[in-house]
Amino acid sequence: MTTPQNPSGEDSLIARYFKPLATDPGAFGLVDDAAILSASGEDIVVTTDAVVEGVHYLAADPPDTIARKALRVNLSDLAAKGAAPAGFVLTLALRSKDDSWLRPFADALGEDAKAFSCPLLGGDTVSTPGPQMISITAFGRVPKGRMVSRTGAKPGDRILVTGTIGDAALGLGVLTGGALAGALASDPAARDFLVSRYRVPQPRNALAGAVRDHVTAAMDVSDGLAGDLAKLCAASGVSAIVDVPSVPLSPAVAGLIASRAAGIETLLAGGDDYEVLCTAPAGRSDSLIAAGQAAGVAVAAIGTIVEGDGRPRFLDGQGRELVLKRQSFSHF
Amino acid sequence: MTTPQNPSGEDSLIARYFKPLATDPGAFGLVDDAAILSASGEDIVVTTDAVVEGVHYLAADPPDTIARKALRVNLSDLAAKGAAPAGFVLTLALRSKDDSWLRPFADALGEDAKAFSCPLLGGDTVSTPGPQMISITAFGRVPKGRMVSRTGAKPGDRILVTGTIGDAALGLGVLTGGALAGALASDPAARDFLVSRYRVPQPRNALAGAVRDHVTAAMDVSDGLAGDLAKLCAASGVSAIVDVPSVPLSPAVAGLIASRAAGIETLLAGGDDYEVLCTAPAGRSDSLIAAGQAAGVAVAAIGTIVEGDGRPRFLDGQGRELVLKRQSFSHF
Repeated sequence: MTTPQNPSGEDSLIARYFKPLATDPGAFGLVDDAAILSASGEDIVVTTDAVVEGVHYLAADPPDTIARKALRVNLSDLAAKGAAPAGFVLTLALRSKDDSWLRPFADALGEDAKAFSCPLLGGDTVSTPGPQMISITAFGRVPKGRMVSRTGAKPGDRILVTGTIGDAALGLGVLTGGALAGALASDPAARDFLVSRYRVPQPRNALAGAVRDHVTAAMDVSDGLAGDLAKLCAASGVSAIVDVPSVPLSPAVAGLIASRAAGIETLLAGGDDYEVLCTAPAGRSDSLIAAGQAAGVAVAAIGTIVEGDGRPRFLDGQGRELVLKRQSFSHF
Repeated sequence: MTTPQNPSGEDSLIARYFKPLATDPGAFGLVDDAAILSASGEDIVVTTDAVVEGVHYLAADPPDTIARKALRVNLSDLAAKGAAPAGFVLTLALRSKDDSWLRPFADALGEDAKAFSCPLLGGDTVSTPGPQMISITAFGRVPKGRMVSRTGAKPGDRILVTGTIGDAALGLGVLTGGALAGALASDPAARDFLVSRYRVPQPRNALAGAVRDHVTAAMDVSDGLAGDLAKLCAASGVSAIVDVPSVPLSPAVAGLIASRAAGIETLLAGGDDYEVLCTAPAGRSDSLIAAGQAAGVAVAAIGTIVEGDGRPRFLDGQGRELVLKRQSFSHF
């Protein structure tokens, strides 16, 4: 990854766009084949998530939002694991090296890397004849043995979630046209809000320390609240009851549900929320909510962990169970 | 990455094919969003390399060789950095979940993970409408501050390379047809050898400790000896003179050069060798060659590092400089 006397296209691309992001000494300015992640007795948390054109983002999405999403879906995992970001490596599969795409992509990636204290450590840039793909492996640090797992939820724990649920699923609905776009024609602010929630997740890294201190289990909601809660419950050997009216909704989503332009069942199974889903004993859950207030991150209690191994149940305001046609997004 | 009561296609795919590979306790059996890489004061070496269908491997290549190549190109980086493998994460972009492809892929990946003591720690499986892609980030361990860089080559150092050069470039030539396939029609053993060198690199991890102990700079040869040596020289602020007759060639390649079916210039700029290129003072280079003999890895001295910042020069048996039309493979 250096710039030799006879720089190849790949090397000059890396030097031009990505070397400025490699601010960590362990990145060696991207002039080596590998990076160093120094460790002093803490655990290194490793997570990897890829975004594919046409699957996780739309080909017409602005390159700066694609860059932010690619990094933030990984930062969101680190937040849910209670880890402080330490850096990331980037694999970029490109059809062409188009400056009008790469420049805003790299600039936005650099801004987020700085904002989240997660410097670029290395990467690989390859050509592909197919859809573009950005694969990121991100690293975090936690005190030894303190990574928050999915497996610790206990009957009686409260179920909590950050932010609001369903915005991104409706944002994607807006971008792909159809009835939803019509329902929002008279409310461009709501439309823009939902689209931005799809394109640019807000990872809850500000809450990572409190997550580590207070919760029994956590994961980020990426494939839909219902399906992801089912995964957390399965990993913990428990079940759950969710009070659907307590699920936090943005005003835009609440308005669309009130006007019947969207259904809550769809949102509970929608993807791309990138909020933290976690469980905590009652006293601890109050501490987490308070920590969220201090950090500017809304945290809402939405239900209770119960014994059993059945699928989590979602109850409406009258205690009736909602039937979800699907639980979550799946690639296959 | 768990198997909930209602497993999605993606989750059951991970459980079926990849959970058996996740033998490290830090992988949590792939039931979590993240893995733990424990560290006890040593440095974690991080490297990432992707292989794309139609670019790094051919669509018709057997899935077991694709799996081995995807992991081994990363293991090769660790070997050149003097690092012992510690694990890897896998991003798999698939068009479909076809058991006849995934089963041999996962089995071969598991065999190599075991053989090289490099367990699967986590990953992401996504769908793509385009060419398949396998992106791996691999981790190694070195004593603190001991990663071998590209930057330490000094004038007077000998230049060394493991194995043989050019086999893979000719193997690709065979697979893509043309004159080379004809030249080898009567020698199927040579043909098979060259193809296997293209499909399944032999990373030199057995030599990693000796590389760390003896060399001043190292990298793996992935994009062609000439271009990669130019990169190493640029990173070290030196130049080089290579004695081309000393570049180690397999009998198959030597035969094709003797019969003029292939040219040495092409091989020096060909890709996919995945051998270790390194520099060492004379005494140390003898130690490295001896360590190679003990480990069953051929190590050959091919030239000398000199002062300057010009492109490395390649001299034939009469001291005449060879003109290389291109230095190495570049994606762009």
